[in-house]
Amino acid sequence: MCSVISRTKPVRLALALSLRANSQSCSYALSHSTRVSPGLCTSVSPLRAALRAYCTRMARTEGLLFRQLFDRDSCTYTYLLADTDTKEAVLIDPVLETLSRDVKLIEELGLNLKVAVNTHCHADHITSTGLMKKQLVGLKSAICKHSGAQADLPLTEGDKIPFGRHCLVVRETPGHTDGCMTLVTGDESMAFTGDALLIRGCGRTDFQQGCSKRLYNSVHSKIFILPDSCLVYPAHDYRGQTVSTVGEERKYNPRLTKTLEEFVDIMNNLNLPKPEKIDFAVPANLVCGVHQI
Amino acid sequence: MCSVISRTKPVRLALALSLRANSQSCSYALSHSTRVSPGLCTSVSPLRAALRAYCTRMARTEGLLFRQLFDRDSCTYTYLLADTDTKEAVLIDPVLETLSRDVKLIEELGLNLKVAVNTHCHADHITSTGLMKKQLVGLKSAICKHSGAQADLPLTEGDKIPFGRHCLVVRETPGHTDGCMTLVTGDESMAFTGDALLIRGCGRTDFQQGCSKRLYNSVHSKIFILPDSCLVYPAHDYRGQTVSTVGEERKYNPRLTKTLEEFVDIMNNLNLPKPEKIDFAVPANLVCGVHQI
Repeated sequence: MCSVISRTKPVRLALALSLRANSQSCSYALSHSTRVSPGLCTSVSPLRAALRAYCTRMARTEGLLFRQLFDRDSCTYTYLLADTDTKEAVLIDPVLETLSRDVKLIEELGLNLKVAVNTHCHADHITSTGLMKKQLVGLKSAICKHSGAQADLPLTEGDKIPFGRHCLVVRETPGHTDGCMTLVTGDESMAFTGDALLIRGCGRTDFQQGCSKRLYNSVHSKIFILPDSCLVYPAHDYRGQTVSTVGEERKYNPRLTKTLEEFVDIMNNLNLPKPEKIDFAVPANLVCGVHQI
Repeated sequence: MCSVISRTKPVRLALALSLRANSQSCSYALSHSTRVSPGLCTSVSPLRAALRAYCTRMARTEGLLFRQLFDRDSCTYTYLLADTDTKEAVLIDPVLETLSRDVKLIEELGLNLKVAVNTHCHADHITSTGLMKKQLVGLKSAICKHSGAQADLPLTEGDKIPFGRHCLVVRETPGHTDGCMTLVTGDESMAFTGDALLIRGCGRTDFQQGCSKRLYNSVHSKIFILPDSCLVYPAHDYRGQTVSTVGEERKYNPRLTKTLEEFVDIMNNLNLPKPEKIDFAVPANLVCGVHQI
């Protein structure tokens, strides 16, 4: 077991109980709100509760430096998270073409990048993790074990990527590909959903190991159970949206609010063109970008 | 005087004293840090202090809903801020082409958009404020009085745009145009700098009423005096960066860290092409977008 990640399986029961307690108090608040304000509130209250909780959760993430970065060509979001005291940092879904921008920012901020992690084996762009490792001493690459891709840290359900007092916890959310992960901060205030859940959308399921039924179940069983206020940061957005919340997506996602059968039907009829870069992006990403690790 | 904005001039002295006290305590922290860690810390400490303060300031902005939105064509950022309890909201620099996206989001979040404000009379895109007013009842448009553009609320230095328990305070920062403003949250945790200060850059000064000397003085006297930890949200970014801090820009901005003379020389030799949309964007923006107010 690599020292960078730590398995949480032994303490998962306690964590689950803790999360359950949170969910229950949240549910109570919602039902209470519904009771005192019947009628319209049955549909509005969850979102209102999520809005109210937004900054409480932001406040709980004390000492977290957070940067969202964008690649305009592939519409990919890269995320930089760091502990403001220890300067230990994690980078999510870095893109080859923006390598110099990202490395420069990391250096200017004085951060010690420990892990560069991909939420899955991307088909639309090449990751910069391989090349970045050559520039930043001690950097480890990470990806889900089930992706079949090479990386220093093959991650599975429940693994933690710690950085300072913070951590990201792996939730396997396959369906777009076999190896898709959602990375959730320890306080459940932020979820980096990769291509599993996009803002008012989701990743396609018609190539690699795509399976719409599996994706639907992943989102509902692993992401939609997070608190309504949990911020959703996807791997892509094509309409200039930067963030959503679990509450919003549960309420307004035009695909994932449907039944499983309706969802499968929608996904079977998207008729999208083949991704331009898939034939060289996927082989490259299977070896941590263009460079062997 | 319109009821939506409130002039802060009578209380500005008290506010200034309060801010001065904050600045002094910040200065003390920095000098203290420098003293205990001499050498390298003389250059690193301010940034470290800014990083440490990052989440304290985030925490202080309790009950604030914040969304950053992007127009991929013009690389314009639109910002939505709202009070999570009262649902009163303000929109900064909305773009005509993303009107439906923005209105839909405002409606889904159940917000009451009070003011749509432009940081200046844009030359690269047309504002959606005029058309948005026709869709959202009670919405007021706002822009700096010195822009020469029509709007419901002609703003000047020190004006406040309140929304619930929060507010934006106007700082006039001319130089890119005569009517450029920076909008600062009441707790000075966020500054919406328009085209005055961009991330590692600044707006051009070779058209409209551009004046590089004036821009330099605006940034140094109105923005760089904010706390190092204050988040900088510009009107544009062309490299996929979404946010910076005052501390970072004071340290790393390649233009504004130069002397005034060097800055003027840089700005005089950019040799940029004429903005594609300027001939129809500026006349439209002088009347609140394509639609008369």
